[in-house]
Order: sequence, then structure tokens, then C-alpha cells
Amino acid sequence: MKAAFMYGAGDVRVEDAPAPVIQEPTDAIVRAVRACICGSDLHPYHSLPGSEHGLSMGHELIAVVEEVGADVRTLKPGDFVVVPFAFSDNTCEICRDGFQTACPHGGWYGTPAAAGLQAELARIPQADGSAVVVPGVDPETAPEGLLKSLLALSDVYLTGYHAAFMAGIEPGQTVTVIGDGAVGLSAVLAARRMGAGTIILMGRHAARTDLGREWGATHVVAERGAEGVATVMELTGGLGSHAVLEAVGHMPAYEQAYGVVRPGGIISRVGVPQYEEAPVGFGSLFGKNARLAGGPAPVRAYLEDAIRDVLDGVIDPGRVFDRTIGLSEAAAGYAAMDAREALKVMVDPRR
Amino acid sequence: MKAAFMYGAGDVRVEDAPAPVIQEPTDAIVRAVRACICGSDLHPYHSLPGSEHGLSMGHELIAVVEEVGADVRTLKPGDFVVVPFAFSDNTCEICRDGFQTACPHGGWYGTPAAAGLQAELARIPQADGSAVVVPGVDPETAPEGLLKSLLALSDVYLTGYHAAFMAGIEPGQTVTVIGDGAVGLSAVLAARRMGAGTIILMGRHAARTDLGREWGATHVVAERGAEGVATVMELTGGLGSHAVLEAVGHMPAYEQAYGVVRPGGIISRVGVPQYEEAPVGFGSLFGKNARLAGGPAPVRAYLEDAIRDVLDGVIDPGRVFDRTIGLSEAAAGYAAMDAREALKVMVDPRR
Repeated sequence: MKAAFMYGAGDVRVEDAPAPVIQEPTDAIVRAVRACICGSDLHPYHSLPGSEHGLSMGHELIAVVEEVGADVRTLKPGDFVVVPFAFSDNTCEICRDGFQTACPHGGWYGTPAAAGLQAELARIPQADGSAVVVPGVDPETAPEGLLKSLLALSDVYLTGYHAAFMAGIEPGQTVTVIGDGAVGLSAVLAARRMGAGTIILMGRHAARTDLGREWGATHVVAERGAEGVATVMELTGGLGSHAVLEAVGHMPAYEQAYGVVRPGGIISRVGVPQYEEAPVGFGSLFGKNARLAGGPAPVRAYLEDAIRDVLDGVIDPGRVFDRTIGLSEAAAGYAAMDAREALKVMVDPRR
Repeated sequence: MKAAFMYGAGDVRVEDAPAPVIQEPTDAIVRAVRACICGSDLHPYHSLPGSEHGLSMGHELIAVVEEVGADVRTLKPGDFVVVPFAFSDNTCEICRDGFQTACPHGGWYGTPAAAGLQAELARIPQADGSAVVVPGVDPETAPEGLLKSLLALSDVYLTGYHAAFMAGIEPGQTVTVIGDGAVGLSAVLAARRMGAGTIILMGRHAARTDLGREWGATHVVAERGAEGVATVMELTGGLGSHAVLEAVGHMPAYEQAYGVVRPGGIISRVGVPQYEEAPVGFGSLFGKNARLAGGPAPVRAYLEDAIRDVLDGVIDPGRVFDRTIGLSEAAAGYAAMDAREALKVMVDPRR
């Protein structure tokens, strides 16, 4: 089967790989319907040291189950499923608390535990605790827009949703979203769903912020840094934002976040931090009792409700996909996202 | 009048100072009944550069009102009051949200805005929004234990309470308190009041941890660093603590905090951070969706309820005071707290 590998910064190749097989009785083997490229895939695309061994890529997938291990109870061959970007048993105390990305029996794709999902076939560990069936949809005949929105639940939309959820947004509150990438726009949509009164989107790419406005942004701030902070403070009457959803992961975004959060407010991060240390002392968070939250989204916790919302037409998160490529074109897909020619690239492995 | 000043690390002097006068119509002048020395006063006691100009010290006080400005409505001469460690208008949007320590019209004692409170007399700015009357108590005849518990509401107990409040402790949860100083012990008491099921107190001073056990600690962990983290992880079945109340402010305490917080759990800090940058990335907070909260306690938000609890005998937070000195003995009081000979020193300016 074909699968995408990264051999170093900027070097993505699609190669033949052995077809996955059931290794544990809790595994399932699935055949990809659609995969995609994540903003977080661009971090290694910028910085991965060159190697003879390619890194198996991808962690977002909608798929059809081909085979299940002896202990799998909720899935059977032929089921159409959404696969969250991390796997989890969904039965332990941490999962029951809603933090499946920290499941002690879970893990990540593109690691020794499980190959990446930009591939024709994939092995899904802890299949019962991870993949969720989409009822009543045949992926062969489903509209492309529906497939896009279901694929968006695998990571991008529910990552934006997680930012809003962890911020505990209350109706009428002011929310600032930092980043107009696909996750930031998803955070706008989620914040609106939670009843935010004012949604300020910090971003400078008009095509993207236009979708942000459609999804609920009441203001767009193109300025960055101190200038951007000053504009948001002005828009919030000098008080700052109740919640700040940080969907970038770089230090300047974090600095903007604590610059615009109001006393007692909360910064909720879902952009994977490209830093380990950051200001949290009296001058940044502590002095104004600002809170910090966020992490890898426990997609599994939100997935059943979100599938229902998509099937009911309540949300249309698939609109972040503005380009579709075949799996063999993966290198061009990464390049297009890196150059910001595409907001988010869907991969059709059958094409 | 006499007041305490710090001229550099380890150099506390009690000197004559001009009696304060009403400067704004919202001011009150009060006469100290009891003041005290704060753990946070020990930070400058260790590090303040020497100067010819003494720093006016102290921010905790119970007092009798002597005079009020023309706009003061809730206080009158003769009222016995608790004075929170920061002043605030208590009417603005930030105060109404419960974050009075970030009030745009508020401020701190021992600054150009207001002298310190280790003094015979003090000017209380924004008096209506800050001081709260203790009903039905005559400080001349009140038992010493009651005075101590009321004084503890000025800062130390409600700072511990704030840690627990911001952690949102739910009944039955596991709470780890880092630090067996007066604030840490207060955090134990507050966590018990909120229904914590297991309370692990990290501290190594037996006289202090004994009071912690009386106040609700179910376990005491004397080890620090990696060893202390390992012990807490063992006590929590490898999962970590739902809430960690950090009552120290030094980096090793912060490191212990993120070491023992469980996935999705929360670190609530009330020890004034002696650092600005700290780990918050994938390896510390983000990876396990751990949250960070805390800051200067908005004592005013909690004060009325806490006064009632003290008067009703529900809590006895004054037990942290294990030494009383006259104001003229302030230098010895600082030295005793610094040497850990005293847990917390009360200052009786009439003695």
C-alpha cells in the first residue's frame, strides 16, 4: 500500500509500505476514505533533521473498517468511522474524566506504536475506544461536503472546540481567537456555538478571516504584537477578553494571548507549543489572575455529539478544506499549506 | 506614630512617621488593633538592595476606624474592620467579577499610593470598597483567638482559600498542597471546607504539618523534588492529583506542582512567583491538559462570608499565629519568621 513519509524538512515522499495487520485483539484495520494534512505537520516540515528513515505521517482520517481484532465489540467490517488523531481505551479513569489524549493505554500515530494515517490502510489500536461509527452514511455516495465535515471532526474542528470548551465560554462573553488557520477558524465556530457575544479574530489573511466572519467573528484584527494587543484592548473597553483561544503555538501568539486576556480571564491553547518555557509570573499571568488551559484535544470525548451536529447540518466544519489531492500528490499538498496557498488540504487516497 | 520600614535585606527598623491624613474623599484613617508579618514580606527581607530610604512595610490589618472621607458610606468612626491586603473600589466590572486585586482603581500598601500597614495608624484608600465591618465585636474585650482569626482573613487564610477556590475543588477530589507555611496550611483548611476527599500536604516541619493534619490533611509528604513527586504519584495510584495548591512561589515548588498534577487537573498558585518564566509546554502542562490558575487573592470577594464563618466558629484560621510581638519588636519578628522559629508573627501595636 501507499503511505506518506517525511525524510527531513520539506522532504515528503509517498512510498510503498507493508500493509498493516492486526497485532493486538483490540486493533482494527481500516481503509482510508479521506485523510488530510494538519497545521502541526508543518512543524516537522520546517525543522525535521534529514534521515535515511522516513517518518510515517498523518493522524486524521475517515475510513471503512476492513478487519477487527477478536476483542473489538463496537466496530465490524464495513462500518464507516471517524478516527480521532490519538487513540485511547476510553474506559480508564483519565478517559472517563474526558482527557483521552492522556490515556495511559493510548498513544499517537506516526510513532513506533502506530503508523501514520496518510496511507491507504491503517492499523487503529484500541479501536473500540478510538474510532466512532457514522450511522447511516455510505461514503461511496455521500456528498463531498459531508465527507469534509466528518473528516474535520478527526482533529481540526474538535481541536478548535476543545479550546473553547476548556475556556468554559459563557453566553455573552468576549472571546479573542489568535490565529486564522483552520484550527483558529474552527475555534471561532465553536465559540459561537457556545454563545460568545463578541468574537475577535486575530489574523491577516482575508480569505480566511472572511470564513471566520461567516462562522461568527464580530471583529477581525490584522495587527500583531503590541499593536494587535492595543487594538483588542480598545475593542474591549480597556478590560481585555474573557477568553483567549490560542491556535498557533508560537511564542508571539502566547505573548499576544496574555496581553489581551482580562483579569480573571483564561487563555486556552490548542496550538502545539513550539516552546517549553513561557512567561507565567506576576507580569504576565499571576498578577491579573489570568488562567492557562488547553492541550491536545480529547476528540473522542466530543466525537459522538459532533457527528450528530454534522449529520443534522448544525455545523459545517469541513469548509476549512479548500484543496483536495491524491495521496501520491502529498508533497505538493504540504508545500501548498506551507506556502499558505491552501488553508487545509484533504487527501483522497483513492484518487 | 510608629511604623516599620525595611532598609535592605535583613534590615527592618521601626521609626517615627507622620500620621496619615485623609487625601481623597474615599479614604479612611484607621488605628491598628493587630497587624502581622507575611511570608511574602520575607522575599524583600532576603533580596532588597540597601537604600537610605526605608520601604514602608505590611499589608495585613484589623483596625478601628478613626476618621472617614466625605464620600465614605459604609464605615464610620469606631467601626471595627478587617482590611484586605489590597484596596479596590469593589464597584467596577473587574471587582464585580470577583478579581478585586486587579481593580483599575485599586492598589497595594507599601507603595507610593498607600503606606504599609505595620504601623499604628493607616490610610485606607477606597475604604468602602476595601474594609469590611466586623459586626458585634469589641476589639477591646474580644478573645485573642477571635482577633487572630479575624486578622487571618486580611490575607493568609483567604489567600489559601483563593487557591482552593480557583482550583474549583469538587467533593471527593484529591488535592495536593505544596508548602507548610501559613498559606499552605490555610489552603488545607479551605480544601477541607470544599469537600476534598484526600488532602496531601507537602511539607517537612512537623509542628506545622501537625496543624495541617488537624485542619484536614490526610497525608503528609516530607520528601521534595523527584522523590516527593514519586511519593504523591504512588499515593494517587499513579494518576496524580486533581488539584495542586502551590503556596510557596519558588521554582522547585512549581516543578513539583506540574509533576504531581494529573491529566486534566489544575495547579492553583498563590505563592507570589519568584520567577517570570516557567515550563508550560508539551512536557509540563500542555501534554496532559493541565491547567494553571491563581494570583493575588481578591480577599474582598470572600471577606463577608469568611467573617461570618469565623464569628460562627466554623473556621479557626488564626491558629497560624504562634507568636505575638509589639510593633517596636518588628525586626525580631521578621528574624523569627525567616529562621522558621515562628510560623506567623502577629504584631500588637499597642504593646
